[in-house]
Amino acid sequence: MNIRETVQSPQIDPQKIDRLAELAIRVGLRLEPGQDLLVTAPVAALPLVRRIAVHAYEAGAGLVTPFLSDEEIALARYRHARNESFDRAPAWLYEGMGKAFDGNTARLAIVGEDPMLLADQDPEKVGRAGKANAIAYGPARDRITAFSINWNIVAYPTPGWARRVFPDLPEDEALARLADAIFSASRADGPDPLADWQRHNGELRARSAWLNERRFHSLHYTGPGTDLTIGLADGHEWMGGESRARNGITCNPNIPTEEVFTTPHAHRVEGFVRSTKPLSHQGSLIDGIEVRFEGGRIVSAKASRGEAVLHKLLDTDEGARRLGEVALVPHSSPISQSRLLFYNTLFDENAACHIALGQCYSKCFVDGETLTDDEIIARGGNRSFIHVDWMIGSNELDIDGVHADGRREAVFRKGEWT
Amino acid sequence: MNIRETVQSPQIDPQKIDRLAELAIRVGLRLEPGQDLLVTAPVAALPLVRRIAVHAYEAGAGLVTPFLSDEEIALARYRHARNESFDRAPAWLYEGMGKAFDGNTARLAIVGEDPMLLADQDPEKVGRAGKANAIAYGPARDRITAFSINWNIVAYPTPGWARRVFPDLPEDEALARLADAIFSASRADGPDPLADWQRHNGELRARSAWLNERRFHSLHYTGPGTDLTIGLADGHEWMGGESRARNGITCNPNIPTEEVFTTPHAHRVEGFVRSTKPLSHQGSLIDGIEVRFEGGRIVSAKASRGEAVLHKLLDTDEGARRLGEVALVPHSSPISQSRLLFYNTLFDENAACHIALGQCYSKCFVDGETLTDDEIIARGGNRSFIHVDWMIGSNELDIDGVHADGRREAVFRKGEWT
Ligand SMILES: [Zn+2]
Ligand SMILES: [Zn+2]
Ligand SMILES: [Zn+2]
Ligand SMILES: [Zn+2]
Repeated sequence: MNIRETVQSPQIDPQKIDRLAELAIRVGLRLEPGQDLLVTAPVAALPLVRRIAVHAYEAGAGLVTPFLSDEEIALARYRHARNESFDRAPAWLYEGMGKAFDGNTARLAIVGEDPMLLADQDPEKVGRAGKANAIAYGPARDRITAFSINWNIVAYPTPGWARRVFPDLPEDEALARLADAIFSASRADGPDPLADWQRHNGELRARSAWLNERRFHSLHYTGPGTDLTIGLADGHEWMGGESRARNGITCNPNIPTEEVFTTPHAHRVEGFVRSTKPLSHQGSLIDGIEVRFEGGRIVSAKASRGEAVLHKLLDTDEGARRLGEVALVPHSSPISQSRLLFYNTLFDENAACHIALGQCYSKCFVDGETLTDDEIIARGGNRSFIHVDWMIGSNELDIDGVHADGRREAVFRKGEWT
Repeated sequence: MNIRETVQSPQIDPQKIDRLAELAIRVGLRLEPGQDLLVTAPVAALPLVRRIAVHAYEAGAGLVTPFLSDEEIALARYRHARNESFDRAPAWLYEGMGKAFDGNTARLAIVGEDPMLLADQDPEKVGRAGKANAIAYGPARDRITAFSINWNIVAYPTPGWARRVFPDLPEDEALARLADAIFSASRADGPDPLADWQRHNGELRARSAWLNERRFHSLHYTGPGTDLTIGLADGHEWMGGESRARNGITCNPNIPTEEVFTTPHAHRVEGFVRSTKPLSHQGSLIDGIEVRFEGGRIVSAKASRGEAVLHKLLDTDEGARRLGEVALVPHSSPISQSRLLFYNTLFDENAACHIALGQCYSKCFVDGETLTDDEIIARGGNRSFIHVDWMIGSNELDIDGVHADGRREAVFRKGEWT
């Protein structure tokens, strides 16, 4: 067959693909003339990558460099490679990406992988391969977490992903349903997606501003299986929606996004918390997470599913046991209301309040751009090779903001902003 | 559609794909346990890349990193990018590849692009983009021309390529015919391809040994439109078929290969020569090349087609006007006998005697591994950002070997070994 002509699924509306591509370039990245662009995507997302290349060049892009990954090749490793393979990672490639970002190359990631791709593989190998990759990825990740350049993540519906979200539907129908859900959650299906995003960004900006006026010392979470106090970092700043990268470009890193978020204090988290949605991590599913924090550190952790993967994850490095992000999302968010479990953090984290293990965003500090690594750590920022979000919100979650003097204000009640 | 299930063309025999993959890993690369592997391929060659990953991991590969390119994205640049884009290249990526090779990563290139992809684009932009890419590619190319690591090129039949080779056939039939031609020329369609390659390598080794005993000072070519004397570099060595890389691995860089070749003297080429087959260069076709050499340098050049691209190519750098390779292929070679024009150098150069503009192979010197760049140049080796082979052989070509004392020996008569 001719991949050029038939790679397009009839289940996925080409006009919506084009609108999502335009959104990724003009709202997600706000790509500026002369910027190069690095795109990573599963090969099944090729129809979107092609439209992204067109919109990038129309916006004046220098060079668009795509990296297409393939699930079959990823699986071939687990099926055929010898044991030593699982400690390897392409450090040279990630160092190169870091250099590209230093040269002001923008970064677009298209997600769409089968979230359970590695579910049947040896968790020990999955963990080792994930750790080796996370360590090697450092030079690229550092520029992204430091927000050196404009970056964006969008999603594309693939058959493998659709099968997981709609296991009871025929494949074509599942793909069509997932496509609708992605275009809708990404606000790419209205008559004027650019205007819709402008309004949405305004609402998120207002929520962040309210929290930044309050300057809470900590947040206190209560709900089923949860009684958790999360100290906020000294000089933390709440953010949401669009944000200004260090290269001066104001972009929307996540499409979709419904969260406002900031940096917790890595040493001031106490109590216990239970996850409310499954976490899909590097092809494995972790569900029913229950952890206890002491002095900011996870001292015990269990899971009803994927506990071995969770423990590998926590053992990545010292920072993997501490928090790097706390995020607020109302239970009434459109993604939550879709009642779908996407098995993908980009979507599921925007359906519920969540926290992240690992690396913090230096951007989530007042004057974060001017802080050194040591200053960030002194203020309670966390360092790690990982950054993994997991969902703790539900319609039974209450959150109080606690001031330094002990005064309390209701922030969330039954999963909604007060 | 599900790319995983339907990317396979029914016109291409999966068993032959698998045999070609095995040949690439076990004969082309002789991949050693623990070696990483970098694979570049057009996205349409994904079925071969997947089998290559399987055979690589079965051979003990560390990590297989595929880079899939897409013709539509390449065209999007020419259709939509602003003028400045055509001076850009991903230097960071090629520097990274250079580092990977320094870390003993093996290199596999799968060719299969539509050879005329860029034929309708502005030759000035094609030339600039090609030059920018050639310059940026230096760190990767240097390791390949210096033969630092085992590398291999194989081909995969794609619909765009098949359309060019068989313009009068329906697309399915064209693809099936091209697939047959590739598997046959690659000696991948017999019952025991590994044994066939062992025998073939033995024959090429015998031809090289004969030429290395003779130690000709120059070769004198005569034929229609051709009266050319090519001085051979001081201490040149003829090679063919398998060859030992500096990392100690004996590999077969080209599948297919029918040539024995060595390094000409960059300053001792005199006379004129006419090409006998079209040259497909970076998506454009150059045909009817006629050039005149003085003191090793091309002082005049014309072409009946693609002359502008030829002139851009010659203007790449000073070394682009001098020779870096001279290769002998009998007119009776199987690829020549197929009477097909593949519009691809890997195949067409193995149908005819050829010469290459640009960079020489340091390997084609006695003790080439120990020579410095300056020593190679002192012996007549050429340096350039390009290495472009073009075909000058036919059944009307005679070649004499000329000794330093003027003595002559017939090497080729009417396109065949004497
Ligand atoms: Zn978040
Ligand atoms: Zn996060
Ligand atoms: Zn050659
Ligand atoms: Zn050559």
